[in-house]
Amino acid sequence: MPEIIRIPFEVLNREFTRILGSIGFESEAMNRCARLFSENTLDGVYTHGINRFPRFVEHVRNGYIHVKAKPEIVHRAGSIEQWDGCLGPGPLNALFATDRAMDLSKECGIGCVALCNTNHWMRGGHYAWKAAKAGCIFIGWTNTVANMPAWGAVDCHLGNNPLVLGVPFREEAIVLDMAMSQFSYGTLESHDLKSIALPIPGGYTKDGVLTDNASEILESNRALPIGYWKGSGLALLLDLLAVILSGGLSTAQISRQAAEFAVSQVFIAIDISKLGNHRTIQESVSGIINDLHGSVPAHGTQKILYPGERVLHTRSENLKNGIPVDKSMWEEVQRL
Amino acid sequence: MPEIIRIPFEVLNREFTRILGSIGFESEAMNRCARLFSENTLDGVYTHGINRFPRFVEHVRNGYIHVKAKPEIVHRAGSIEQWDGCLGPGPLNALFATDRAMDLSKECGIGCVALCNTNHWMRGGHYAWKAAKAGCIFIGWTNTVANMPAWGAVDCHLGNNPLVLGVPFREEAIVLDMAMSQFSYGTLESHDLKSIALPIPGGYTKDGVLTDNASEILESNRALPIGYWKGSGLALLLDLLAVILSGGLSTAQISRQAAEFAVSQVFIAIDISKLGNHRTIQESVSGIINDLHGSVPAHGTQKILYPGERVLHTRSENLKNGIPVDKSMWEEVQRL
Repeated sequence: MPEIIRIPFEVLNREFTRILGSIGFESEAMNRCARLFSENTLDGVYTHGINRFPRFVEHVRNGYIHVKAKPEIVHRAGSIEQWDGCLGPGPLNALFATDRAMDLSKECGIGCVALCNTNHWMRGGHYAWKAAKAGCIFIGWTNTVANMPAWGAVDCHLGNNPLVLGVPFREEAIVLDMAMSQFSYGTLESHDLKSIALPIPGGYTKDGVLTDNASEILESNRALPIGYWKGSGLALLLDLLAVILSGGLSTAQISRQAAEFAVSQVFIAIDISKLGNHRTIQESVSGIINDLHGSVPAHGTQKILYPGERVLHTRSENLKNGIPVDKSMWEEVQRL
Repeated sequence: MPEIIRIPFEVLNREFTRILGSIGFESEAMNRCARLFSENTLDGVYTHGINRFPRFVEHVRNGYIHVKAKPEIVHRAGSIEQWDGCLGPGPLNALFATDRAMDLSKECGIGCVALCNTNHWMRGGHYAWKAAKAGCIFIGWTNTVANMPAWGAVDCHLGNNPLVLGVPFREEAIVLDMAMSQFSYGTLESHDLKSIALPIPGGYTKDGVLTDNASEILESNRALPIGYWKGSGLALLLDLLAVILSGGLSTAQISRQAAEFAVSQVFIAIDISKLGNHRTIQESVSGIINDLHGSVPAHGTQKILYPGERVLHTRSENLKNGIPVDKSMWEEVQRL
């Protein structure tokens, strides 16, 4: 069993800041990037917070991520802008693109920013929380390296291409952040390690039988798209749209490189204060959420929650008591 | 076994035209609407073509659909327009909204049209084919009556809210048209009727056990969202976005009415000729499709196809040989 310790947010943030400074980040970029990793960890998204931080540092050291690069405008067409991420840090490029999409939405109602040559944005939900808390609808997605077979295939030609949707709600947000694979590799690996079954089938055995056995899925490399043929189609379309809009690399092209870098992303923001019904929107949203909360839970379920609802609790709990972190992971970070 | 006969496209179209004329459609609206039902049937989408036509006529006769209503502008904010569908025929309102979104995209790069008080659009893919063949990316969705439980719930509080994405490809299109339920009620009913198992689990038994038995799912009324918690979240977010953007009714509100009418829809178009990389887009799209086609099929699978690929074959086959139609359905239509 891993030993869990609680690290105060500010201690974690200071450590990330120190390390980013040591690998060449300049002051403002260092602070923004450290904060993003800290906030993702605070919200309980370890896979795109502390657990991913060592790989991020490694990618900087390997030269896949250019710490001083800034996005450059390539083309503007009305409410759409196409930017080159210049292989800069994915989180900083994504924060920039979110801000630009929000600025465009203030000017044009809707704003769309597409980024080519950028890097892993870590947790896509981060940008949706940011935009939604500032009064914008957020729709964004990224392509990835090929890590999932198309429906009916045995070899990986699709990315799990996370799609993120966010809506302002009270002073916070409703945020859906979902990859197109039913389970992440992180989840498969942790179930394999503990030898426990997945709650539902998550892929195929080598013999093409649907299974909830994570180690058999890791062996076959055939993770399941959500909704079988549907998630397979959606993953393909998200890649197509990201590539068309950004002019950047496709999942197929990214997969021919030595590592996952130079991905393509899309950020759409809609300023809801510009809509004719802006005065009644919060009431409409509350009505939908109240109706959802009125669902009758199945046996064994407590309460039906909206996407992002649990995060608020985790966040305030961790701010108060410190963030529960795997001790060996914390030590690994401190050695960076 | 139902008897299948082949009806030429023009014969089907003439019959739909006659019936729509008889229930009060004016000339141009009659022709557009008949053509849409004919084309959906031609493409093999019977559930939103001939098989749905009698219910469409019934909804007109019941006063849920106002045949002479035209959409009215409510508000414009830059590249976004909000329209009131005035309870007009769903397909005509959707064709109108698609055209408006495309016009806006020519002006602003991206155009977003949201419709409140509209009706069932039949096959969402129709609008994606139209926009994509005219050189636009299409992103659209609709809410529906509640017909699916949220993840973890036993009663229906979510719509299956179809999402449609389209991309221009050669002279045709890549079109994904997917509801958020794993199987439609039509599919569940046809499997129940034939007493055959679904290819994968499609919902729950009354006792909360995942099952591929369609009749048990129809009994429990617990159809499965695609990807379990993921499709549940996506269905909720699509409803939220449709309601915020259109100012129209939510799935919860629609479900309190006597029938499914006055739904909310969103149509987004992006004119790809306005993008900086427009000259190389078709090459990029071909590259992605060629890579997908290079997938190794699993045992029992012929070839990996992109969404919409099979439709082209069905369409040309049916244009040549007539559209295969259930004889009793054809007779039912002729009696309308």
